[in-house]
Amino acid sequence: MSDKPDTSLSPFGTARATIKDARVLSDDELKLYNRYMSACLYLCLGMIYLKENPLLKEPLKLEHLKSRLLGHWGSDAGQVFTYMHFNRLIKKYDLDAFFISGPGHGAPAVLSHCYLEGTYSEVYPNISEDAEGMQRFFKQFSFPGGIGSHATPETPGSLHEGGELGYSLSHAFGTVYDHPNLIALTMVGDGESETGPLATSWHSNKFLNPKTDGAVLPVLHLNGYKINNPTVLARVSNEELHALFIGYGWTPYFVEGSDLDSMHQAMAATLEKCVSEIRSYQKQARDSGKAFRPRWPMIVLRSPKGWTAPRDVDGHHLEGYWRAHQVPLADVAQNKEHLKLLESWMKGYKPETLFDESGKLVPELRALAPDGDRRMSANKVTNGGTVRKPLKMPAFEDYAVDVEPGVTETSSLANIAKFLRDVIKYNQTNFRLFGPDETESNKLGAVYEAGKKVWMADMLPEDADAGNLAMEGRVMEMLSEHTVEGWLEGYILSGRHGLLNSYEPFIHIIDSMVGQHAKWLEVASRLGWRAPIASLNILLTATVWRQDHNGFTHQDPGFLDVVANKSKDVTRIYLPPDSNCLASVMSHCLKSTNYVNVIVADKQPHLQYLDMESAIAHCTKGVGIWEWASTFPDEEPDVVMASCGDVVTKEALAATALLRKYLPDLKIRFVNVVDLFKLTSHEIHPHGLTDHQFDSIFTSDKPIIFNFHSYPFLVHRLTYKRAGASNIHVRGYNEKGNIDTPLELAIRNGTDRFSLAMEAIDRMPNLKNKASMVREKLVNEQISAQNYAFKHGIDPADLREFKWTFGSYDGKAGSDTKNISNKVGKGAQPEPHAAVIGASD
Amino acid sequence: MSDKPDTSLSPFGTARATIKDARVLSDDELKLYNRYMSACLYLCLGMIYLKENPLLKEPLKLEHLKSRLLGHWGSDAGQVFTYMHFNRLIKKYDLDAFFISGPGHGAPAVLSHCYLEGTYSEVYPNISEDAEGMQRFFKQFSFPGGIGSHATPETPGSLHEGGELGYSLSHAFGTVYDHPNLIALTMVGDGESETGPLATSWHSNKFLNPKTDGAVLPVLHLNGYKINNPTVLARVSNEELHALFIGYGWTPYFVEGSDLDSMHQAMAATLEKCVSEIRSYQKQARDSGKAFRPRWPMIVLRSPKGWTAPRDVDGHHLEGYWRAHQVPLADVAQNKEHLKLLESWMKGYKPETLFDESGKLVPELRALAPDGDRRMSANKVTNGGTVRKPLKMPAFEDYAVDVEPGVTETSSLANIAKFLRDVIKYNQTNFRLFGPDETESNKLGAVYEAGKKVWMADMLPEDADAGNLAMEGRVMEMLSEHTVEGWLEGYILSGRHGLLNSYEPFIHIIDSMVGQHAKWLEVASRLGWRAPIASLNILLTATVWRQDHNGFTHQDPGFLDVVANKSKDVTRIYLPPDSNCLASVMSHCLKSTNYVNVIVADKQPHLQYLDMESAIAHCTKGVGIWEWASTFPDEEPDVVMASCGDVVTKEALAATALLRKYLPDLKIRFVNVVDLFKLTSHEIHPHGLTDHQFDSIFTSDKPIIFNFHSYPFLVHRLTYKRAGASNIHVRGYNEKGNIDTPLELAIRNGTDRFSLAMEAIDRMPNLKNKASMVREKLVNEQISAQNYAFKHGIDPADLREFKWTFGSYDGKAGSDTKNISNKVGKGAQPEPHAAVIGASD
Repeated sequence: MSDKPDTSLSPFGTARATIKDARVLSDDELKLYNRYMSACLYLCLGMIYLKENPLLKEPLKLEHLKSRLLGHWGSDAGQVFTYMHFNRLIKKYDLDAFFISGPGHGAPAVLSHCYLEGTYSEVYPNISEDAEGMQRFFKQFSFPGGIGSHATPETPGSLHEGGELGYSLSHAFGTVYDHPNLIALTMVGDGESETGPLATSWHSNKFLNPKTDGAVLPVLHLNGYKINNPTVLARVSNEELHALFIGYGWTPYFVEGSDLDSMHQAMAATLEKCVSEIRSYQKQARDSGKAFRPRWPMIVLRSPKGWTAPRDVDGHHLEGYWRAHQVPLADVAQNKEHLKLLESWMKGYKPETLFDESGKLVPELRALAPDGDRRMSANKVTNGGTVRKPLKMPAFEDYAVDVEPGVTETSSLANIAKFLRDVIKYNQTNFRLFGPDETESNKLGAVYEAGKKVWMADMLPEDADAGNLAMEGRVMEMLSEHTVEGWLEGYILSGRHGLLNSYEPFIHIIDSMVGQHAKWLEVASRLGWRAPIASLNILLTATVWRQDHNGFTHQDPGFLDVVANKSKDVTRIYLPPDSNCLASVMSHCLKSTNYVNVIVADKQPHLQYLDMESAIAHCTKGVGIWEWASTFPDEEPDVVMASCGDVVTKEALAATALLRKYLPDLKIRFVNVVDLFKLTSHEIHPHGLTDHQFDSIFTSDKPIIFNFHSYPFLVHRLTYKRAGASNIHVRGYNEKGNIDTPLELAIRNGTDRFSLAMEAIDRMPNLKNKASMVREKLVNEQISAQNYAFKHGIDPADLREFKWTFGSYDGKAGSDTKNISNKVGKGAQPEPHAAVIGASD
Repeated sequence: MSDKPDTSLSPFGTARATIKDARVLSDDELKLYNRYMSACLYLCLGMIYLKENPLLKEPLKLEHLKSRLLGHWGSDAGQVFTYMHFNRLIKKYDLDAFFISGPGHGAPAVLSHCYLEGTYSEVYPNISEDAEGMQRFFKQFSFPGGIGSHATPETPGSLHEGGELGYSLSHAFGTVYDHPNLIALTMVGDGESETGPLATSWHSNKFLNPKTDGAVLPVLHLNGYKINNPTVLARVSNEELHALFIGYGWTPYFVEGSDLDSMHQAMAATLEKCVSEIRSYQKQARDSGKAFRPRWPMIVLRSPKGWTAPRDVDGHHLEGYWRAHQVPLADVAQNKEHLKLLESWMKGYKPETLFDESGKLVPELRALAPDGDRRMSANKVTNGGTVRKPLKMPAFEDYAVDVEPGVTETSSLANIAKFLRDVIKYNQTNFRLFGPDETESNKLGAVYEAGKKVWMADMLPEDADAGNLAMEGRVMEMLSEHTVEGWLEGYILSGRHGLLNSYEPFIHIIDSMVGQHAKWLEVASRLGWRAPIASLNILLTATVWRQDHNGFTHQDPGFLDVVANKSKDVTRIYLPPDSNCLASVMSHCLKSTNYVNVIVADKQPHLQYLDMESAIAHCTKGVGIWEWASTFPDEEPDVVMASCGDVVTKEALAATALLRKYLPDLKIRFVNVVDLFKLTSHEIHPHGLTDHQFDSIFTSDKPIIFNFHSYPFLVHRLTYKRAGASNIHVRGYNEKGNIDTPLELAIRNGTDRFSLAMEAIDRMPNLKNKASMVREKLVNEQISAQNYAFKHGIDPADLREFKWTFGSYDGKAGSDTKNISNKVGKGAQPEPHAAVIGASD
């Protein structure tokens, strides 16, 4: 009786491999591996087809089948095969390793191992290691209320879902940074390989240090087909493939074939060779203390799609063809022949020899897999929260900017750089800063004092001139938003902390990745056994209002809309108006877990308003009345000037000053929003204000001139339910770009001080005669500023610097400079609005 | 006197090239090319620094400089050099070619050639070919109200802006498909090369047919540095680089150095070799009639960043270092030494020998560039609208589905496939269909009858089994949304037509690309000299409401939010409720120009409602009352049931039927929206309804239960200004996903018929006692359906098929099946709402 499925008709025949004529497994071992593989594949098919009769002890009948057949068979065998052979090496060398499943919908492969290793039953006791548990295990797969066909968060041992393709390798690299003993065995799909993010992530090897980081062992699975097409990499010559991976800086090892015994030998030997190379490169670097860039090994595995399925069905190829992609015999319910074929196919794996009477894997097979945490399905990094150590945080208050309100001018980013430098300093193996080549441009260069930019590619003598490149470092820069985001996700998913800094206009490039991560968090946070991981922190800078000179292509603040569509339990958006607020927000975000935190702050020097005490109070509330910028703060206002975002806050304050200058009796309330979700209802987002809170700040019946950092509609969608919704007049970015000065860009979009002041006037019909007079003055001021800008190519200085605004307040408005910070303190926690103090996370 | 800038200190020395010891240029030619290059580089510097004194006839003073220095010098010289040497071959072989500038901010290089070739002055007569024109040419660059530092739409000869990096190659390929004589000379930045989209787009050579398509000649510019880092590809060995491009399927030719004379010889010879290979591959394929995949040539050009700038300034490297990236001597206004240095640097190019007394390029240099349309700056494909031929369109009415309203069930996608098939058939060199491996899955397989999938990589005997792969074809599939989108953009920018089909959940991958294209269109449509190009048409399918089984990662309808943020002059979003509406919308979109059209339609079989006549009327209006689905249509309604999207329309109709069943006296108005922007004000979007029109359809005071395809907030942001805004209760997708049945997914998000009917009841307080009774019945129906689904893993048939809804209307409600289409006709253009008929484009 054969110990293995029949692959005599399989298309690729005897193994052909870089390592010739391998024979590392004994005949007995071969038999065991064949049987272990059979057990996995039997489970894969069970998941796809069965809801009853899990061990096929009864003849297979229609009622044992699921009503709707779902799942993917195509890449299962290749993945099962790779995972299984790596288990041998884990046991042999006591390796610390885990598995990333890149190919789409390959969950059955991972789930089958996870179940056989016992991990699944440990996490989900009702899915026990017996016939009853197996039946539930089968039924729940791709079944309503059950689990999905990717390695979703519900899957023990998975930190990479792979529902969207392209991120397996960048996630893998992120996971092994600063985990020197970890190996990420990463199955890369050949479909996935066609995506841009995957194609460039092979270059991650220029950013991995053999001394201080672990290793990624990629296995490119040439499974041959996507849904309905061959894959590009499966249809070029081996010569090209070999060159491609040499070109990417790897050492490729080929394993190709379909004959099981020779494939087992080839794969066992090849994995052994790869592990030994990895260990030897690491040893060399660690023993010598000298890092270098090895040509790390990788494997090209060519096995038939749907390997071990029937080769032909009804005269068409099944195994080795795209028909094996999803459910191979989708019509079993209608076609009795196919039902019979399915039964004999499944029985061909000989379940009765693999599982004991109770339905548990027989001991001699279980012995092939590692135990405890050494099981890839139980590796603790895949439940990163369990190994997460909180950051050692400097007190952000120590980085306070000394503020003369409305006079001090500084770059919030340059200041927060010092804080981030010290976060790096205190967390040399637990925090990294990521960005696509813009860290210095974003005025965060101070971080290099505590951690250089990692660079394992060639260096030149002149690199010493800047001195910020090093083989060991803390800052990760590659001009691929996809790759640095993927690294960061991998880094935090495996229990560490990080921050991505990026130009605002190009963050849309990773809309989809961030959306997928938010979905992962949303599900993971519902699973009791998954410990919280550090938040995904994204700092957006070089923002739209200072992209006047780069023009239209560099103007897009719409990432906030994308994030705002994700789960309320996950998303947090902050727009600190100045430097001390940024420090408060940043510290909060770095300490938080399980969120996607988006912080928007421009990098250029801007006016500062709040001292640290006031900033903390303001950020804790998330929204507040600034009494010092209001007039007659104890009275009901005529108009509310509101702002959210740093540059637009300056313009809104300046507009307030203009109104004060021309209409000294006007009662103006100034409101600033730091935490965007304060605008919406607490029923929609946990940070949302109640209607009562909202009205007490914004009023329900006064015109609200709201200057917003991003597209104005985002404010409307957040506030549409508020009593005063129809009074909210939002100015923001409206795709009106050109090559401009900051003033001209603001004017084109109506967010400049003059337009705002005019808007306020237009919204107060009872101003009557006065309105047209003031309007005329504002128009004249605006025109004269525009003329200056047009002639000189820059804004008049006062428009950039704004120092003239604050001197003119009288006592009543609380504008005396000396008193401003006290007023701020008061304004920040006004008694009547105490209820405003909401959740601070 | 030397005829060239001094590069004796330049870092890379004498040329090293794959083609050794090239000598194709005579000494006289060498001198001319040195001078032409000097002319270009002089212009580049002029653009960056000067607003006066363009020819430096006076000593350079502060007042000649721009107040704010902007622009990028770094990649200019390498690009200028490449462009110039290709001109020689254009003239020699009468080539039809144009230039794509991939490196960021490289516009000065392109602009300088464009100006010297006279094209700039032809398009912008005020920028004349004399000193006065040159002064204006300099001043406008990166100056408020002027032009940008990328090859923006304002740049003649450009169809690729490059403001966002990564798309130069995919654009280039899109441009040469079906343009057999065209060569796209494509400069690829080494920074750009790190992006994912660029990294995978090298594989585009597996989709280019030498018989029927033109050629792309990529020049990878190893300029060495990004903003603040070296580039990865500039810091790996030439061995790895060579292997990488062999691996990608190209034949790389290296040209490296900084010594001008030897570099001129090397580049001239290398370009000649490449052009001759391209022509010979094309000849071979065309003479033999047999296509094949050549290893097309490409060039690796390594030249110093900022080439020909001073090598060292103040003891630091400038030329050959990242300091040359942007403005090399940024402090000239403060530093007199640097001002002097700038003057001598610029004068080193000897402008007095390059331009005549009037400021025009001297004739012997002008003679180096081609004339007329052969100038790359004047190639007609770069103003694609001028060569665009309208599609030969089949009459979409001929593809009408024969509809028994509410009974017929069909896949709208399977039907539109026939229409698309015939569009392909009638436009065999003017239309292509693009998609990432999902065309068949999206039920569009019928298109293969008229055009196969292009596949130039290896084929296997079994490929004949499906028969849809071919070297010549009309359908472009690669598993890279970035690449297929880039191809499509290139294809339409160069005057042709196309459609992208994609799964809805993964379209966020190209958010940023589509946003950038929208920006291009917005600017281009303002330029009188740019003729309109075909719209960018995107068909989204496999939509969220049928991703119940794939789960949470496959559920994201938020692309509409991203598109809705772009310019109103460009964006159009359609959600046809059924097949005939889809045909009407699709035909309209394919005929339109200069839009981004997004069409959302699910691929699964769904109920059909409107015959073709009614569908045309409904789609022309974009929104309308469906009297046949309403009750008491001649009276003021108690409640408005509204829908936008196909699956949600079915649920809203079913909810209406449920209400009708339990509350036969209720006056229900049913409204369907096809054209999403109808919801907003005509002041915000040209398709928007006036408030009067909106109120006459939706009422201003009745509860509106709005079932929406996407995130509900999009409806709120569009309608926040309407009188009845607070009555609009939107149900849509809310990130509540799991592994579900369609019913369960809808229930989780509140978009199912039962929840909608309950919501309607809850919003009508005057129902009083009846409400709780009906509510209970609805809850019971919902629970029993859920129980069925949970037990069987599929929805009960009636919930999927819905055939029970329409039979029960009585005469008054106009439900008699025979009369439905008449009613629809009437409903579609109700007299009182005549004003509703808005812009139809």
